[in-house]
Amino acid sequence: MTDEVESVLSTVATEVAPTEAERTRLEAVVDEVLAETRATVAELAPEAEVVHVGSTARDTWLSGDRDIDIFVRFPRSTDRETLRERGLAIGRAVLDDGEANYAEHPYIVGSHDGFDVDIVPCLDVPDASQVESAVDRTPFHNEYVRRELDEDLTTAVRLAKQFAVGIEAYGSDLRTRGFGGYLLELLVLEYGDMRALLEGAAGWSPPVTFDPAEHGEEDFEDPLVVIDPTDPTRNVAAVVSETNVARLQHYARRFLAMPDRFFFEAPERSPLDGATLGEHLSARESEIIAVTSHRPDILDDQLFPQLRKSESGLRDALDRAGFDVLRSRVMADDARWAILFECTVPTRAAIERHEGPPVALEDHATRFFDGYADDETVTGPFIEDGRYVIERERAHTTPAALLREIDLEQVGLGEHIRRTLEAEFTVHPTDEVSALLERFGTELRAYFDPEP
Amino acid sequence: MTDEVESVLSTVATEVAPTEAERTRLEAVVDEVLAETRATVAELAPEAEVVHVGSTARDTWLSGDRDIDIFVRFPRSTDRETLRERGLAIGRAVLDDGEANYAEHPYIVGSHDGFDVDIVPCLDVPDASQVESAVDRTPFHNEYVRRELDEDLTTAVRLAKQFAVGIEAYGSDLRTRGFGGYLLELLVLEYGDMRALLEGAAGWSPPVTFDPAEHGEEDFEDPLVVIDPTDPTRNVAAVVSETNVARLQHYARRFLAMPDRFFFEAPERSPLDGATLGEHLSARESEIIAVTSHRPDILDDQLFPQLRKSESGLRDALDRAGFDVLRSRVMADDARWAILFECTVPTRAAIERHEGPPVALEDHATRFFDGYADDETVTGPFIEDGRYVIERERAHTTPAALLREIDLEQVGLGEHIRRTLEAEFTVHPTDEVSALLERFGTELRAYFDPEP
Repeated sequence: MTDEVESVLSTVATEVAPTEAERTRLEAVVDEVLAETRATVAELAPEAEVVHVGSTARDTWLSGDRDIDIFVRFPRSTDRETLRERGLAIGRAVLDDGEANYAEHPYIVGSHDGFDVDIVPCLDVPDASQVESAVDRTPFHNEYVRRELDEDLTTAVRLAKQFAVGIEAYGSDLRTRGFGGYLLELLVLEYGDMRALLEGAAGWSPPVTFDPAEHGEEDFEDPLVVIDPTDPTRNVAAVVSETNVARLQHYARRFLAMPDRFFFEAPERSPLDGATLGEHLSARESEIIAVTSHRPDILDDQLFPQLRKSESGLRDALDRAGFDVLRSRVMADDARWAILFECTVPTRAAIERHEGPPVALEDHATRFFDGYADDETVTGPFIEDGRYVIERERAHTTPAALLREIDLEQVGLGEHIRRTLEAEFTVHPTDEVSALLERFGTELRAYFDPEP
Repeated sequence: MTDEVESVLSTVATEVAPTEAERTRLEAVVDEVLAETRATVAELAPEAEVVHVGSTARDTWLSGDRDIDIFVRFPRSTDRETLRERGLAIGRAVLDDGEANYAEHPYIVGSHDGFDVDIVPCLDVPDASQVESAVDRTPFHNEYVRRELDEDLTTAVRLAKQFAVGIEAYGSDLRTRGFGGYLLELLVLEYGDMRALLEGAAGWSPPVTFDPAEHGEEDFEDPLVVIDPTDPTRNVAAVVSETNVARLQHYARRFLAMPDRFFFEAPERSPLDGATLGEHLSARESEIIAVTSHRPDILDDQLFPQLRKSESGLRDALDRAGFDVLRSRVMADDARWAILFECTVPTRAAIERHEGPPVALEDHATRFFDGYADDETVTGPFIEDGRYVIERERAHTTPAALLREIDLEQVGLGEHIRRTLEAEFTVHPTDEVSALLERFGTELRAYFDPEP
């Protein structure tokens, strides 16, 4: 078994290491981009410094990666507006096809000789705990990792990244909420090699805390806590969802029990077809409803937290009305988003119970009785367990009816999602869910065949 | 308003008082029965004493009543077997058509000149707190009430009884769980007249306690507590249900607000017809299921507590399975019983969620995963919130299917009801509920038009 783990790891390590040719090519492109950026900076912001960061700077990139991250570090005294303007100007000057990308902080994305290049302005702060923006922290991470990693550890980082890709948990973006490169680098440093990392993760009992620099100052509520060695106030793993922590544990155990290259390959899902969808629907006999609308003009890192908040708000509304949501899922592409709810209760009776006060509370009770005694639309008032009770019409007897008539003010929704819903939305009940197949067929496949 | 209350009460008082002719007739029959019983007792049990008890002995009977209760009081030293044998022999000798009735204590029921006569053997104990059977207590009640009641109070007792009849809460039997004659006598003695009793009841905040002899020794949990003036350990109102206490309060208020003879008349319900049933069913869109079986050979006082226990056990099972019971009702006639359940959830999805352990609990988690990983009948295991979850086939997707296949050992049921269910039962879902119309049409009318 031992041998097999090592044997698979060594095979994969060879596959994911960049070839000499790739390496030579990348270095040449990096040198060119750095030279051009430095020349531009000398002209437009001579006080700034140019650094190459990210996985290509740390040698932790995977064969096939084509990302070059260039940071332009301005003196700390630079005001926000100057930073922004000059930073974007430099990026545009270097990258012919450069376009501004506005995350927490604006920067330029473009390409050079077939590589994807980001040119990112940031501030040069004395240490990472004094950053004004997340990007100011990157150069510190870069220095730390370059200092700590040797060749074997670098190999282990590549394996860890490829494993995270294979289990679909790679990336610290808010769509994935998985393991980012820096986090995996720190975990590898913590455990010393890939096998030890997998054995460690297999046995985690979250919450699990690591503090490589032994300087953590705060308590975190996250399932996985890795205190940033460059910033005692930050949990590098804050973004990792409970599910992704569990997923790493699950697949680490599976791999160790049954080592196979398979675990390092992201599953390829074909979009679900209509016939298979029909089979799932008739086997489940549930009510599957999708709410869809157009995508607001925001990035995934803004969209997905809002979609999840909306998913939770609408799910609560469905649960409160007694439709018992079994599972739900958010999905989005460039043009539209959808939230799918699967309800265990397809319909409820046309009436619902409404309890009045105990008969003994004379004033309340009399008011309640008088209010309903002549109401032809209700059954009762009658008495049960000492209280007046009536049965009245239920507002919505199906989940689709509830969603179609929902009061958007009464539901927890992401702000941009609320606005798209106010403009237009469609509710697809079970017999119209196939309308999602064209756009979200792959997501639907994953919904009906969920894996750990 | 005052005048109207008094005026209605006085009209009803006249109507419910036995006429001179009735009185004369009753007295003649009582004298005959007493004489015959005494003659028989002199022969068969010369040590025993014969007393006339109950409402005809206290003059609190209502016009039209035809009940004569004769108690044969044996010395306390009499053993149970002798009491039983001689008691039944005396009754059979006096009443040509006498038949044994086995309640807590066996006695003879029969008739004489058109009156219903009970001849009940009991023991002569020194005081009511030393009774061996509930019937031993009756002579003490009789003495107490005869001593305390004057003519006005007697009139008020008749009004109180007729009011309880009108609101369908008259009787201390376990089917009704209402107000028995002795309890109403005590309440009238407590309040002094009918109007004061109604005004008092209208303002009760249960639990309400009365202790006319100021000798109560125990705390009772019942909503209405009236300590027996002949027995400090007994709550005369123990049998009264919370609903019937509330019902008395409700109708007392309604009568005082709008005095009318109507309140003293038991509602006459025509059996529900099929067309009206159909209208109710389609307006409610609920699932109404009836379980029916044959009546076990027991008295109402045994049957109804068992039916209610079974109602509660089956209701819990339906609720646990997520069919959300809105209301239920027990019914019985001489040959069959039925329990009706109205479910808010007519069907549930064919699948249900089954949560496994947290992935972090390695041994448990691995066992769970391995147990389901190759199970083609389930969806998953997948991970949600750090746990393994599967979706598996639900045992029953409709309330009728659940009841048809119910494991009788797993449900709280009355013992005789369990046995009838083991022998045979029928489950009628909504579209077959009309099968109950012939036997329980009046009960169904009351179910769909419930009154306080």
